[in-house]
Amino acid sequence: MSGNLSCKDAVKLHEYFQGKIETIPKCWVSGLEDFAIWYTPGVAEACKAILDERDRVFDLTLKWNTIAVVSDGTRVLGLGNIGPEAALPVMEGKALLFKYLGGVDAVPLCLNTKDEGKIVEIVKAVEPSFGGINLEDIEKPKCFSLLERLKNELSIPVWHDDQQGTATIVCAGLINALKVVGKKLNDVNVAMIGVGAANVSVERLIVKAGVDERKIVMVDSKGILSRSRRDLEKSEPYKWSLCLRTNFEGKDGGIAEALEGADVCIAMSRQGPGVIKKEWVKKMNDKPIVFSCANPIPEIWPYEAKDAGAKVVATARSDFPNQLNNSLVFPGIFRGALDVRAKGISDEMCLAAAYEIAKMAEEKGLSEEYIVPTMEEWDVYPREAAAAAYQASLEGLARKKTSKQKEYEYAKEIIFNARRKFEQLKLSGLIPRP
Amino acid sequence: MSGNLSCKDAVKLHEYFQGKIETIPKCWVSGLEDFAIWYTPGVAEACKAILDERDRVFDLTLKWNTIAVVSDGTRVLGLGNIGPEAALPVMEGKALLFKYLGGVDAVPLCLNTKDEGKIVEIVKAVEPSFGGINLEDIEKPKCFSLLERLKNELSIPVWHDDQQGTATIVCAGLINALKVVGKKLNDVNVAMIGVGAANVSVERLIVKAGVDERKIVMVDSKGILSRSRRDLEKSEPYKWSLCLRTNFEGKDGGIAEALEGADVCIAMSRQGPGVIKKEWVKKMNDKPIVFSCANPIPEIWPYEAKDAGAKVVATARSDFPNQLNNSLVFPGIFRGALDVRAKGISDEMCLAAAYEIAKMAEEKGLSEEYIVPTMEEWDVYPREAAAAAYQASLEGLARKKTSKQKEYEYAKEIIFNARRKFEQLKLSGLIPRP
Repeated sequence: MSGNLSCKDAVKLHEYFQGKIETIPKCWVSGLEDFAIWYTPGVAEACKAILDERDRVFDLTLKWNTIAVVSDGTRVLGLGNIGPEAALPVMEGKALLFKYLGGVDAVPLCLNTKDEGKIVEIVKAVEPSFGGINLEDIEKPKCFSLLERLKNELSIPVWHDDQQGTATIVCAGLINALKVVGKKLNDVNVAMIGVGAANVSVERLIVKAGVDERKIVMVDSKGILSRSRRDLEKSEPYKWSLCLRTNFEGKDGGIAEALEGADVCIAMSRQGPGVIKKEWVKKMNDKPIVFSCANPIPEIWPYEAKDAGAKVVATARSDFPNQLNNSLVFPGIFRGALDVRAKGISDEMCLAAAYEIAKMAEEKGLSEEYIVPTMEEWDVYPREAAAAAYQASLEGLARKKTSKQKEYEYAKEIIFNARRKFEQLKLSGLIPRP
Repeated sequence: MSGNLSCKDAVKLHEYFQGKIETIPKCWVSGLEDFAIWYTPGVAEACKAILDERDRVFDLTLKWNTIAVVSDGTRVLGLGNIGPEAALPVMEGKALLFKYLGGVDAVPLCLNTKDEGKIVEIVKAVEPSFGGINLEDIEKPKCFSLLERLKNELSIPVWHDDQQGTATIVCAGLINALKVVGKKLNDVNVAMIGVGAANVSVERLIVKAGVDERKIVMVDSKGILSRSRRDLEKSEPYKWSLCLRTNFEGKDGGIAEALEGADVCIAMSRQGPGVIKKEWVKKMNDKPIVFSCANPIPEIWPYEAKDAGAKVVATARSDFPNQLNNSLVFPGIFRGALDVRAKGISDEMCLAAAYEIAKMAEEKGLSEEYIVPTMEEWDVYPREAAAAAYQASLEGLARKKTSKQKEYEYAKEIIFNARRKFEQLKLSGLIPRP
């Protein structure tokens, strides 16, 4: 192999490197005699210090910067329920992103069980070693209750990227898209296509951000959520509660009806194109905003949406403007949460991060084609870290207090240091270019 | 801090580095566009390949080289039951040794439960992500049954260093010590002081190596194990089975009586000195061998044992000759087991490693003061790896076959490569000398 790495060679490249992350010593070792400090007998002093005061484990071990990426392999990418072994390349990829973008040490933990109770038990059991838990690619509705239970039962942050990560970046995008079209959060009619893990969380967060819940209309595969959807009352209680809280106009029908008169469309449903039709976009309000986030094929192609009059269009893809990508979020929020040894990640921390992302794009100059930073704009990570960490301090979720500026500098240093180490190994030829 | 690192500063040094290992990318990344290979969409191809053929997970992910260091914190060093957080510095230290000495990626998993059934369930659940499991610092008798159950139920190696690691190095030492004094394995009377996890395993392995079990006399805190110890029949069945199999002469009494007429003393009991008295050593057979392994204070000081006539004396300490140290064993055996993707680590693999360790010392020239290599003699690790891996191949425990020579070269390359990366980071100042 030579030249640029190509996606076509993904399997070959995976085989060439046999893994995407490894462990490496981070403490000074001159020779075997130093193991008397890092192992017996010296280590006993560190153990005793933690025995005396449990939170010292954050000072004296890797816990402060290490999270587990936990999956049962039930909903992996577009592949579905492929099991824990086949899910491992994704979890390891996530761990790579965590380190590369956020300086966070992440360990993939693919679980050989799909049972919610057992997953709770396992994650609770491994808590002592980790400063946070990232749940990944877990099917719904289990992912909702799992996240809630673990958030309640653990005293470290628990995060489900498909929920909170997506909600955060969509919220950031919405804040700025509304600025571009000159509308206000609490004024707009929002049509949400798809009622999966992503949109359920997006809905909660944009409401916290100020969207009037009564003006939201959600559509699942059977149509608009409304009080007439009594089928959901027993079968899918989380959807039923949305039926009660949203859509005060009492709309019925499908996507077409939901979009009629909407200012914003947030689609997180199934592969397009054609899920959303041009003529439906034409019936949206003046200067409509369309987030079409099915990946890789959006519900409607951006150029079609534009053609139908959409003013701001965003997708999940990197090859169109306005990529709404979770990878803009999780490395930064976790960086901040870990740096203050947060006990959890609240919706308010997500919102703080969303506003910081939005602010950064605004500082650079908003346009129809630029509502959020791109991943190349590295500064987004320490800025988010600072915003999330500071919010955690305000809420009493931080074991260690910090100021926004201090955390920004600290996060930046950690992320850059991680990058420097990696680049040094590349430079030295110890990570070969295939 | 400056000059040599000192054990006195162990807590300060732990705090300075905040961890002993970290993760680092090991695949080529030029820029964000390469995430299309390592994460979506490219990674899906690797997932599908594993879905088609599960063992491909060894080719395409970190699994082939990653183990979990699992502890419930119930028997940590000499500190006892200190819990999972306080145990973490030790597990992280072990992970450091695994990487530094054996090139093995190890992840500390300290568990918030002491329940054997739950530990089994958790370890089974995390199996997909790991190529092996290292149990550490778990109290007896749970450690025995836990190891047996996990060995049976997992299809990756499960190892309890306090059992197998200790047994392997003691066995290697015994083989050579007997050569030094000109006696044979199947001829000697062996007194074993202490019937904990270590000596129970040592007993099993030296019997497999050729010691006549009937000529072994074991002593616990209440005296010699014999058929008259009916108290053990119900309370400690693993000890009772030793009562039935050992000590055919029917000795009763304590350490003094056990040592009388013994050729070999293997002590793994409690901190000395004075647990073994000089006058008892004097009553051992001609040219006695004394392994006095309580750490840090041996049951009898080596110079006292020598003074009392012992011909070969070994301890667990690095500051006396003949250090019997598990760290000579686990990095090498795991290296070999991982390299052939072994389904388990058998006693025969331990024996093969023990013979290889013994052979290496013999090649350099045995003496009363040199029965096993020191940790500075790096070659011991790839040699052990080759011996263990080859034995796994012979037994049908290897998913991937290898020859001894091929595995030796392969293991050496992996270990050296891990060291090279670490040294490069030190050289570049990215791991600061405190």
